[in-house]
Amino acid sequence: MMSTISTVKFEANGKTYSPAASPIVVICMDGSADEYLDTTMLFDRMPNLKQMVRNGFRGMVRGALPSFTNVNNASIVTGVSPAVHGISGNFFYDTLNREEVMMNSASYLRAETLLAAAANAGRKVAVVTAKEKLRDILSHNMKGIAISAEKANQARQDTHGIENVEAIVGFPTPAIYSADASLFVLRAGVAFVEQGLADLLYLSLTDYMQHTYSPEKEESLAFYEAMDREIGRLLELGAVVGATADHGMNAKVKADGSPNVLFVEDILESHFGTNGFRVICPITDPYVKHHGALGSYVVVHLSDPSRTDEIKNWLAVQPGITEVYDKATAVRVLEQPADRIGDLVVLSGRDVVVGRRPEYHDLSALDGSLRSHGGRYEEMVPMLISHPLNAQYKMKAAGDPRNFDIFDFTVNGTNP
Amino acid sequence: MMSTISTVKFEANGKTYSPAASPIVVICMDGSADEYLDTTMLFDRMPNLKQMVRNGFRGMVRGALPSFTNVNNASIVTGVSPAVHGISGNFFYDTLNREEVMMNSASYLRAETLLAAAANAGRKVAVVTAKEKLRDILSHNMKGIAISAEKANQARQDTHGIENVEAIVGFPTPAIYSADASLFVLRAGVAFVEQGLADLLYLSLTDYMQHTYSPEKEESLAFYEAMDREIGRLLELGAVVGATADHGMNAKVKADGSPNVLFVEDILESHFGTNGFRVICPITDPYVKHHGALGSYVVVHLSDPSRTDEIKNWLAVQPGITEVYDKATAVRVLEQPADRIGDLVVLSGRDVVVGRRPEYHDLSALDGSLRSHGGRYEEMVPMLISHPLNAQYKMKAAGDPRNFDIFDFTVNGTNP
Repeated sequence: MMSTISTVKFEANGKTYSPAASPIVVICMDGSADEYLDTTMLFDRMPNLKQMVRNGFRGMVRGALPSFTNVNNASIVTGVSPAVHGISGNFFYDTLNREEVMMNSASYLRAETLLAAAANAGRKVAVVTAKEKLRDILSHNMKGIAISAEKANQARQDTHGIENVEAIVGFPTPAIYSADASLFVLRAGVAFVEQGLADLLYLSLTDYMQHTYSPEKEESLAFYEAMDREIGRLLELGAVVGATADHGMNAKVKADGSPNVLFVEDILESHFGTNGFRVICPITDPYVKHHGALGSYVVVHLSDPSRTDEIKNWLAVQPGITEVYDKATAVRVLEQPADRIGDLVVLSGRDVVVGRRPEYHDLSALDGSLRSHGGRYEEMVPMLISHPLNAQYKMKAAGDPRNFDIFDFTVNGTNP
Repeated sequence: MMSTISTVKFEANGKTYSPAASPIVVICMDGSADEYLDTTMLFDRMPNLKQMVRNGFRGMVRGALPSFTNVNNASIVTGVSPAVHGISGNFFYDTLNREEVMMNSASYLRAETLLAAAANAGRKVAVVTAKEKLRDILSHNMKGIAISAEKANQARQDTHGIENVEAIVGFPTPAIYSADASLFVLRAGVAFVEQGLADLLYLSLTDYMQHTYSPEKEESLAFYEAMDREIGRLLELGAVVGATADHGMNAKVKADGSPNVLFVEDILESHFGTNGFRVICPITDPYVKHHGALGSYVVVHLSDPSRTDEIKNWLAVQPGITEVYDKATAVRVLEQPADRIGDLVVLSGRDVVVGRRPEYHDLSALDGSLRSHGGRYEEMVPMLISHPLNAQYKMKAAGDPRNFDIFDFTVNGTNP
């Protein structure tokens, strides 16, 4: 069923992509701190990945901040930073309409995707995401297949570019809180390549397993081992494979194992008085079992912006807080869209999460102890490429490559 | 020649160490970004380290800032941060005496070392450092062996606790700009354990190889492979081995391979006018072939401190600059000694170094292109322990462990 694969160049957001005639598969291994690969490979349980990076490339790249899923997935499919594409979290406070709104819809996306451009240039594009919440952004204006594992059995030809997904993939629609939610994404990718249904794929996994298990746990090792089998099948099918992560993952607990949380709205009110602060946790999403809406990054809206410097300087020296920026500095240093952050942006330490107030965060739903992300210590993630990098991209890899360069590296970096 | 090994507890800077009756060896693998281990292990060239961490522990720890050698070595042997031990670089500006002074002498150390405490408690302690510059700080007030590879053949019993080092180790004094400079340190450690000359050792390597070669270069792979052989011998001798790094290492070059430098004194004068600024590069040391005194961390002394905020805010949004702190914030967030930093502390990006003015930096001496450290992107380093961690230290490893907890982990973390 293999058909001719288009090698027509395509362009998106100022970058040009010159694809080879091979299937191209980019994987976002959600929440894959490098330690997950280190540990699983240490026990010789990722033989395909090992062989893949021996032939190709393994290194570290810098993600977009905040180190959240939607932010980085939007960056990966556009090739640009949040300052350009506009997705700065799952949630933001709309200061014009004075309401807190979800940012899951493509209507918030300010850049076109390279996937849409590839499809327009003649590639058969498929997007498979674990969580339905990402499907709208990832498939924005795109002709092709766009499904989620979560709702695989609801895909219809006219809306998803495919139907009978379970039969095609050979697996049932998985539970979202499971290893299978991510494995289904990879299996769908394998099936689509094998059956000639797609030749440029973006496979975006989910981090339920990483939120729940540290790298040395058998559940995690078995999960990465199962991922490795699917990666092996993609390589057997002749695909050029690139993989990265949206963010890392760290335990955010005290010495007794309980969550290590700083409730920023609470501490600001205790110190400066009530009713002056609105803290937004942009990690908030409907999938509560992962993290209880607690990450290492929040934004603060002030009712009296003239006090910005005073409040910033106080916050900056509170234990657990590692970085505090005013809006102008966050726009430059953290590459944020000015209209979708607050007056202050606050990041916390490797083992610390920041929240709003206790009543906003239900930790009883967590499976396991608190592991989360969002801050600086989840910014650096692995990049893996199945084919040798050419001289230009070797040089680029040695600079400050980004996780949202992954299509650039996979498509252009492996050209001779 | 093995004699009884003391298990008497010892205490330093508020921490208690309960050593086992085995030889204990802590290695500081200078400049070992995790990528060096990843890449060498990928090619199956560190079999002993692989077996060691399969039995024990491998994870990431946070170093002290600035991510320089002396700062982190002083932290490792005291178990505390620069705010406590006072060593904040190789160089600082003494504002009282108005002079720039080297900080290589133990007279600048404000905390006792755990090595001295261990020796006082009856352990046979040996310190072996590649560079002579570190010997004074590491062996402060310590009874035992203290030598450098650089001047191994000059060691005398009364001043170094040992003589005839070349005969004992079985290797000649190495050139300082070589792989052998570090390998000699490890070989000396093996010889001292084997011959019963020491039972608690600190082996501090040098990063000439990492400054000069990226992880995938054959020179680097062969170097780590040679390190692995010595680690294997230490394990064969029954040692409990812990290893970490003082800092990571990144290429600091533009797309054309030339050094990516921001001369901070220059840009400040261009913008704010002349004669108001003194920029100190605390990485400066006599070993010029490594980095040309360019790292990702400088401090700035202002002739008019009332302009601190204005200058800080301007610097914070300059491309390449990632963090700028005033003194009070640097003391808290970066754990610095207030009297040995400047009015401002400036950190730069993963691929950027900060310097003073071009005339202060001789890059012609570099062997290879510019690879350096000092900033946030060289802060996270590996920690490797040869024996399983007990429950308490497993929990500790999952929080925010530090590279200067390495003796704590190696000594206390492996106790049943």
